[in-house]
Amino acid sequence: MDFNIIRCARAILHVKDLDVSRQFYVDALGFVETESDEETIYLRGLEERTHHSLMLKKAASPAVEVLSYKVATERDLEQLASLFTEKGTEIQWLDKGTQYALGRAFRVQDIAGLPIEFFVEMNEVERLLQRYDLYKGARVQRIDHFNCMVADVEETYHFYRKSLHFSCSEYTDTKEGNIWAAWLHRKQTVHDVAFMNGLGPRLHHVGFHLPDPLAIIHACDVLASMGYGESIERGPGRHGLSNAFFLYLRDPDGHRIELYHGDYLTSDSDLSPIRWDINDPMRQTFWGHTAPDSWFQEASDVLDIHTKEIVGQQKGKLKQHKPTFMI
Amino acid sequence: MDFNIIRCARAILHVKDLDVSRQFYVDALGFVETESDEETIYLRGLEERTHHSLMLKKAASPAVEVLSYKVATERDLEQLASLFTEKGTEIQWLDKGTQYALGRAFRVQDIAGLPIEFFVEMNEVERLLQRYDLYKGARVQRIDHFNCMVADVEETYHFYRKSLHFSCSEYTDTKEGNIWAAWLHRKQTVHDVAFMNGLGPRLHHVGFHLPDPLAIIHACDVLASMGYGESIERGPGRHGLSNAFFLYLRDPDGHRIELYHGDYLTSDSDLSPIRWDINDPMRQTFWGHTAPDSWFQEASDVLDIHTKEIVGQQKGKLKQHKPTFMI
Amino acid sequence: MDFNIIRCARAILHVKDLDVSRQFYVDALGFVETESDEETIYLRGLEERTHHSLMLKKAASPAVEVLSYKVATERDLEQLASLFTEKGTEIQWLDKGTQYALGRAFRVQDIAGLPIEFFVEMNEVERLLQRYDLYKGARVQRIDHFNCMVADVEETYHFYRKSLHFSCSEYTDTKEGNIWAAWLHRKQTVHDVAFMNGLGPRLHHVGFHLPDPLAIIHACDVLASMGYGESIERGPGRHGLSNAFFLYLRDPDGHRIELYHGDYLTSDSDLSPIRWDINDPMRQTFWGHTAPDSWFQEASDVLDIHTKEIVGQQKGKLKQHKPTFMI
Amino acid sequence: MDFNIIRCARAILHVKDLDVSRQFYVDALGFVETESDEETIYLRGLEERTHHSLMLKKAASPAVEVLSYKVATERDLEQLASLFTEKGTEIQWLDKGTQYALGRAFRVQDIAGLPIEFFVEMNEVERLLQRYDLYKGARVQRIDHFNCMVADVEETYHFYRKSLHFSCSEYTDTKEGNIWAAWLHRKQTVHDVAFMNGLGPRLHHVGFHLPDPLAIIHACDVLASMGYGESIERGPGRHGLSNAFFLYLRDPDGHRIELYHGDYLTSDSDLSPIRWDINDPMRQTFWGHTAPDSWFQEASDVLDIHTKEIVGQQKGKLKQHKPTFMI
Repeated sequence: MDFNIIRCARAILHVKDLDVSRQFYVDALGFVETESDEETIYLRGLEERTHHSLMLKKAASPAVEVLSYKVATERDLEQLASLFTEKGTEIQWLDKGTQYALGRAFRVQDIAGLPIEFFVEMNEVERLLQRYDLYKGARVQRIDHFNCMVADVEETYHFYRKSLHFSCSEYTDTKEGNIWAAWLHRKQTVHDVAFMNGLGPRLHHVGFHLPDPLAIIHACDVLASMGYGESIERGPGRHGLSNAFFLYLRDPDGHRIELYHGDYLTSDSDLSPIRWDINDPMRQTFWGHTAPDSWFQEASDVLDIHTKEIVGQQKGKLKQHKPTFMI
Repeated sequence: MDFNIIRCARAILHVKDLDVSRQFYVDALGFVETESDEETIYLRGLEERTHHSLMLKKAASPAVEVLSYKVATERDLEQLASLFTEKGTEIQWLDKGTQYALGRAFRVQDIAGLPIEFFVEMNEVERLLQRYDLYKGARVQRIDHFNCMVADVEETYHFYRKSLHFSCSEYTDTKEGNIWAAWLHRKQTVHDVAFMNGLGPRLHHVGFHLPDPLAIIHACDVLASMGYGESIERGPGRHGLSNAFFLYLRDPDGHRIELYHGDYLTSDSDLSPIRWDINDPMRQTFWGHTAPDSWFQEASDVLDIHTKEIVGQQKGKLKQHKPTFMI
Repeated sequence: MDFNIIRCARAILHVKDLDVSRQFYVDALGFVETESDEETIYLRGLEERTHHSLMLKKAASPAVEVLSYKVATERDLEQLASLFTEKGTEIQWLDKGTQYALGRAFRVQDIAGLPIEFFVEMNEVERLLQRYDLYKGARVQRIDHFNCMVADVEETYHFYRKSLHFSCSEYTDTKEGNIWAAWLHRKQTVHDVAFMNGLGPRLHHVGFHLPDPLAIIHACDVLASMGYGESIERGPGRHGLSNAFFLYLRDPDGHRIELYHGDYLTSDSDLSPIRWDINDPMRQTFWGHTAPDSWFQEASDVLDIHTKEIVGQQKGKLKQHKPTFMI
Repeated sequence: MDFNIIRCARAILHVKDLDVSRQFYVDALGFVETESDEETIYLRGLEERTHHSLMLKKAASPAVEVLSYKVATERDLEQLASLFTEKGTEIQWLDKGTQYALGRAFRVQDIAGLPIEFFVEMNEVERLLQRYDLYKGARVQRIDHFNCMVADVEETYHFYRKSLHFSCSEYTDTKEGNIWAAWLHRKQTVHDVAFMNGLGPRLHHVGFHLPDPLAIIHACDVLASMGYGESIERGPGRHGLSNAFFLYLRDPDGHRIELYHGDYLTSDSDLSPIRWDINDPMRQTFWGHTAPDSWFQEASDVLDIHTKEIVGQQKGKLKQHKPTFMI
């Protein structure tokens, strides 16, 4: 089947207190608040011309409602829907108007159990890229990727590559040749989504692209000066895999956010993916720092699109849950 | 016709003295010298896994031999060849082996008279992105774009959009609604090629992507300390159009090179191009600096692919040769 | 006589509209507004623990009221007063309480006719260096230096060196060996004050220290996005002399401000000053950019401390008013 | 007694293999190698006009031979010698010519047992500050400070303040009001030397000043790409105390080096030192990262100036050996 998924486009996260979240995302990190009401805050980065890339929804407990991808045309959307339907997966159509600022969309639980969504159209808003007077905090430019823990990375990897036509930029495998983690992309960056072996399905983090490395240093300084020192979970550091300069944060509800700068262009489809050995000590986090245990163990629960309950989780199929190398 | 041009991929520039060029490109700017011989230097950026993106060829006088684009498949290459042939344009096939490190290619004079080339395959070489010990000068990462002066921008624009399937990210028009300049892309950055109204066909510059804004400051410092102060023609500054932080240099033969950082993702095909009014004083170079006359008047001659002679040049069709705004 | 002038400490500038000035200095450049009233705004940088380093005073026309230096002890202050008195210069004492937030001070017209002031004590205020959440615009850290145009540089130079015990870090001289410009310091940076040959006495600019080079790039972006593009007079660029990365701005009243980063430690009193030949083309602004005419010709008038009238100006004694090299 | 110690000036470290050290300090970190022979390497930073600030001497085992301070005049040197002699401390004079590139000097074991040295004159060499073509690695600009572990911080603090006329910029004390650590300076930066409570006398680290924060990020990248990942012990991070952006490295012999940028001017002698509570969780390393155990426990042995043996060490007098906060 022929269709064109453009890119990862937005995440909907459930949070307990919108004001607390706003202080973290808008005041400290510098996200643009497109709009908000009693139940929701719509956030975007400074270069984004689409209405939002992060939607925070008030809820009794933190969870991930859905991870959304933008698709090129309505025809593509229908082809995608057929793909899932033909595989026997129940999809959920949401007509235009059902979701604020969004056109027609459908949701589905992917092969790993992650709630995902596809849409074509989102309201266009003013680009603030050159409103430098509004820059603050981390100067977030745009959403970059989702990173998910899943029980069966290989199966998920093959589904996204073969059925959804994602390309693989880099991957990690074990001595036995099993794929332990994979970085998959549709847009021409290192990834739109990565999958790692672990208790899943869970969302490990949402990554946002920053304009330069100093924006990460400044983000740390601003977070610390506002009392968010404990929100800094890992970094700053350099990823071996992807080459990005990174910082991992935990938002007030525990959702993990990555600030990210410095990967590379992945336009050339004839280049083979870069392989990393999970236990090669030279392929660790590039500077040799280790990640804290929380980084390996904690992640956000995801919801069933139909029942709205937390999707049941299974242990990672591969035994090695915590490699020296991880990203 | 259906084909997929991936991106701008390399320029072949004629230079008079390879050692003089090497000092500028390799010692000062930090290009990686993949290989070289008596007649040629092959250069690439630190993230590039293809053999070269800039080929310097020893010649009696400076000129542009060809501007090359990478195409996805051999079938695409043939479709492209048919497109030109059907329009009555004579193409020149170069079999694999004819050009060092390159697969089969064909060259053609485009609608504006520019010598362009399409190929699928270039030798893969080691990626040096994480060999930070080799970083120096401007830390050039990869080729980003060509910028060309042509006599008839509208005609060229329509050919690249309609026939070659480029997208337009931004453009400048006159009061009368004529397109004065256009930024066109295949890969998901602001451009692979831009066309500006002026005496043409000529190559205005080749742009290279840097990892961060400080690499541009450091490039200025290194150039100055090596005696290349006069090679700095314009900048550093911020482009209004494209939003990039830039520096324009003239190489020892007068070819213009742009160091470039900070444009944005252009993945979303449904967004309309950003329009700039050529005489709107608020849309000048973002910080209000003016460019020197040389920047508006001087550019590199291009060669006829068949005769190897300089292609005859015509004045820009639109009368306004030097707007306040230009990039 | 023995006394210890610590450093340049504050400038009092007359401006026509405080709200207009506030928008430039506080909103755009990120100065901290310590306090203000109907007649005055007191500004400081983020690392400064003294009440203000820039005082803007509402007045009918722009001018410089005084340039102030901090002195170590009350005894030093009296010794300094004696020095001037013994030379027959009339000084003006301002008792503690006369000037807001300031202890006892005296003012005097220096040998070049510049209105200068000495004080020991200024109110201490909270240091905001680690309130990164308040950083914006240029992230101004502290006052760095005054730069003045005077008719007789040599005479002024000798007075500041011999009588006021300033050290010289760098200087420019002519073929004939006359000092054309000199950079003099008390604190351990390149300068607290510089004197240049020209129509004087006038204040050429007040320099402020920034935390890193990117703060200058960001300042340009913020200024441009707020409509202050025309306020950028020169730069960004690298000074040969002092080695600083710089930007020159004109405030809404035409006063010139330098944003400045990257000079060096001048603690070693046994090192000889660095000499620059005024016409050595290699010693120009380091990257070879030329400064605009306004930069050479325009400067702020200074007031007589007694009459409050503009001090009469004389042409620079050395004929070469505009060298290729200048800083 | 009246004398003027200008600044910390050089350290002499014993290392086992000069070639191994050269690769670390020169090739990776970018120190300038002024001169070297079979027994010694003389290193300096890019802005330094004195012959060296770090001297590596071949020896059977790693140790600190001496920490040297530059003094203003020969008269000051003699006054300083008298001070120690009058206290009954045996000093060791080294005539001009005894030490390469150095004038007359004397060495002494300070009150804490640290081997220190005072001199007036060191050979002047070319300043390479504007030889940007030579910049590499961490772009080390100049020596900044020594940090030492001593058994009795209060006693050492009082000796340096009262007898040697150092000023205190910041300090840490315990609930009981005992000084746990102190940052003392002669030049106008946060410190020339810091003392921390712990097993001593030992040298904890030598700090070097870098031109900007990105130089630290680049240093990490270069170190990692050259296989020195394990040399990165702590950071990059922001110090609460001093405000500097930092990185701690271990050289091939285990000596600790700090790369340091972003403290502030300490010219104003009337400002009181900034106090930090050792256990205030808000005063930790600014971003909240903890330091590894090695950072608290490991330090370099120092030699007796007379016997050349390792000086015997005593436990820190204050019981709290490892605060949450430390720098």
